[in-house]
Amino acid sequence: MHAASDPVANLQTLIRCPSVTPAEGGALAALEAMLKPLGFAIERPVFSQDGTPDIENLYARLGKQGPHLAFAGHTDVVPVGDENAWSHPPFAAEIAGEEMFGRGAVDMKGGIACFVAAIARFLDQRGGPPGSISLIITGDEEGPALNGTVKLLDWAAAKGETWDACVVGEPTNPGRLGDMIKIGRRGSLSGRVRVAGTQGHAAYPHLADNPVRGLLMLSEALLYPAFDDGTRDFQPTNLEITSIDVGNPATNVIPAAASLAFNVRFNDRWTAESLQAEIHNRLDRAARRRKLRPGRREPVRFEIEWNERPSHVFLTRDVRLIKLMSEAVEDVTGRRPELSTSGGTSDARFIKDYCPVVEFGLVGQTMHMVDERVALADLEGLTRIYERLLARWFEKGA
Amino acid sequence: MHAASDPVANLQTLIRCPSVTPAEGGALAALEAMLKPLGFAIERPVFSQDGTPDIENLYARLGKQGPHLAFAGHTDVVPVGDENAWSHPPFAAEIAGEEMFGRGAVDMKGGIACFVAAIARFLDQRGGPPGSISLIITGDEEGPALNGTVKLLDWAAAKGETWDACVVGEPTNPGRLGDMIKIGRRGSLSGRVRVAGTQGHAAYPHLADNPVRGLLMLSEALLYPAFDDGTRDFQPTNLEITSIDVGNPATNVIPAAASLAFNVRFNDRWTAESLQAEIHNRLDRAARRRKLRPGRREPVRFEIEWNERPSHVFLTRDVRLIKLMSEAVEDVTGRRPELSTSGGTSDARFIKDYCPVVEFGLVGQTMHMVDERVALADLEGLTRIYERLLARWFEKGA
Repeated sequence: MHAASDPVANLQTLIRCPSVTPAEGGALAALEAMLKPLGFAIERPVFSQDGTPDIENLYARLGKQGPHLAFAGHTDVVPVGDENAWSHPPFAAEIAGEEMFGRGAVDMKGGIACFVAAIARFLDQRGGPPGSISLIITGDEEGPALNGTVKLLDWAAAKGETWDACVVGEPTNPGRLGDMIKIGRRGSLSGRVRVAGTQGHAAYPHLADNPVRGLLMLSEALLYPAFDDGTRDFQPTNLEITSIDVGNPATNVIPAAASLAFNVRFNDRWTAESLQAEIHNRLDRAARRRKLRPGRREPVRFEIEWNERPSHVFLTRDVRLIKLMSEAVEDVTGRRPELSTSGGTSDARFIKDYCPVVEFGLVGQTMHMVDERVALADLEGLTRIYERLLARWFEKGA
Repeated sequence: MHAASDPVANLQTLIRCPSVTPAEGGALAALEAMLKPLGFAIERPVFSQDGTPDIENLYARLGKQGPHLAFAGHTDVVPVGDENAWSHPPFAAEIAGEEMFGRGAVDMKGGIACFVAAIARFLDQRGGPPGSISLIITGDEEGPALNGTVKLLDWAAAKGETWDACVVGEPTNPGRLGDMIKIGRRGSLSGRVRVAGTQGHAAYPHLADNPVRGLLMLSEALLYPAFDDGTRDFQPTNLEITSIDVGNPATNVIPAAASLAFNVRFNDRWTAESLQAEIHNRLDRAARRRKLRPGRREPVRFEIEWNERPSHVFLTRDVRLIKLMSEAVEDVTGRRPELSTSGGTSDARFIKDYCPVVEFGLVGQTMHMVDERVALADLEGLTRIYERLLARWFEKGA
């Protein structure tokens, strides 16, 4: 029996490597040490970019033929926060009351530990797979993500690697193991709107032009009406204004400028481009209204700056992959998981350009928090689910 | 003939004293030297308060009987700004092209220079006044005004001083000498509204509570509908939101709190108290709306902080004072001045608690600006207007 078939031991090894982004912390080396005895060919490409630290990544492949199933994830973790507030040290992987405590327990060293254990058990049962299994693991998912999954996929594709399907091991379950598979993600778009006014004395508003009045009209147009009611597969598109900034300390002065920042999470009713056009239209129309600017004829003077690469929306079309992932979950937990596209973005948004991708992992409740922890029963459960998926996915005709 | 009867010489003397608040700069000493030969009894009380500089002030009275006419003003001036941008040095009082240049030329050393010259001429013509004339002059009008007119009035009243009427010499004319007398002022009220929310991830807005949404609803309620359409004597009440501050740098985070600052200029339809009650009502109603907070049942959590002593609205009821001031203007300029309550607050808001008060002075166009300046003809004109006022006001039955 392979040593790596115990997910609890695997996870203890990984948690004890303090791999807070951008540090490798020994985590990829430990993973390499688990995979090598299973027969994987392993590479550890390092990516860098001006002004950001070098980042270590790992690509491991077992087998040379298709079909080719990939697992994607990250060994880097978010900072521990207030270390004194933890009831167990965050890098000790202590077990108490049927739970293991530690940073990364669920997000997502736990997912990696289970997938490695599942491969070990699969190989114990069947020998080598009738095809290939790969792990695509980055050390830069929780950081700026500039030297992580995007470059790793590029690098592998340039070597001729292709994949037929991929599972991302992020924690997808809101409450209990088996709740939810993610089969797509909303897109995300951020921007800043700046309104120009004319400074002046608060007692002589007609000699000034208060940019706050214009900003309020543009703000309402961003929020109301709703962009859509949701689609068959997705939640409604939602925009949040995340900041408004004027910074005028003088109560008797009308300020010269005002700005706001916003973020939209959008569904498959939109592309990033069509949504940008809609937002431009809403702002242009609102700029000509007068409700909060009585007596003003000129439109609100504003400009919009799109300040991030947008994350594009996607929906997984691989019915077989979704069906097999769901059945594996139901086989082990007895419950049919919800197929969801809710929540934030993940590295699946990059992988979807190479092959169909679904996401399933542990329970996310304690991710990024003090006392991040995982039930030992969930580690065993997820290992069995991944093992079922491997068995079924490589089964011809399933 | 008294030396002080030339307003041009008086003003040159005063401008050459660099009395930027809180500095006395020699200005009150120079004024004392002008008034002493005219027979005034002069006192120079100094007021102080923890954390602010000591401020010199001047109270001068000629005569011991009623009726008692006062003139109020200030010798302190605002900073010069970019001194290199001045075409003449700001404290040189140079004359060029029938104008005198200098900080305080119109706001309001010019008004003081003219009133002193008017008294000198009046005494040359008639000897002592049939009553009393006083000057109430502070060195803290352009600053925080904590050690100025309010304390000076208190101090004089405590000594038993009473006045029958007062003229404030601030520049009241928008374009030409004779345009406008101020016979009241709107009140002013400032506050800050803080909205509490619940921080969270922009992708999970239902788990957070974005305070910006509530702040926008409260903002609209502050601005719309208008508080009133104005009254017989006053402009409409007007509220300006002077700042909105969230300060959240993370585009994927919903912030925990948001706040706004506002200032209202209000007319005699309101008292400071009734306006505060109206604003509370508007905010309470808006906090329960849902337009920009779909699905939320709990009202917006907010608090309001009134962050300044309010300035109370007032309107001068002394028909004789207004009539005599208007006639004096018309006698000299040939034009009937508008009786106005527009614009910002002035020290008249304190004086009105002691006696009826009107404001009339020079043309305000260059006040607080680089190249502040006054037409020599206006100095002569304003001196004649003040002299007419003195003559008529002390005339029995006029």
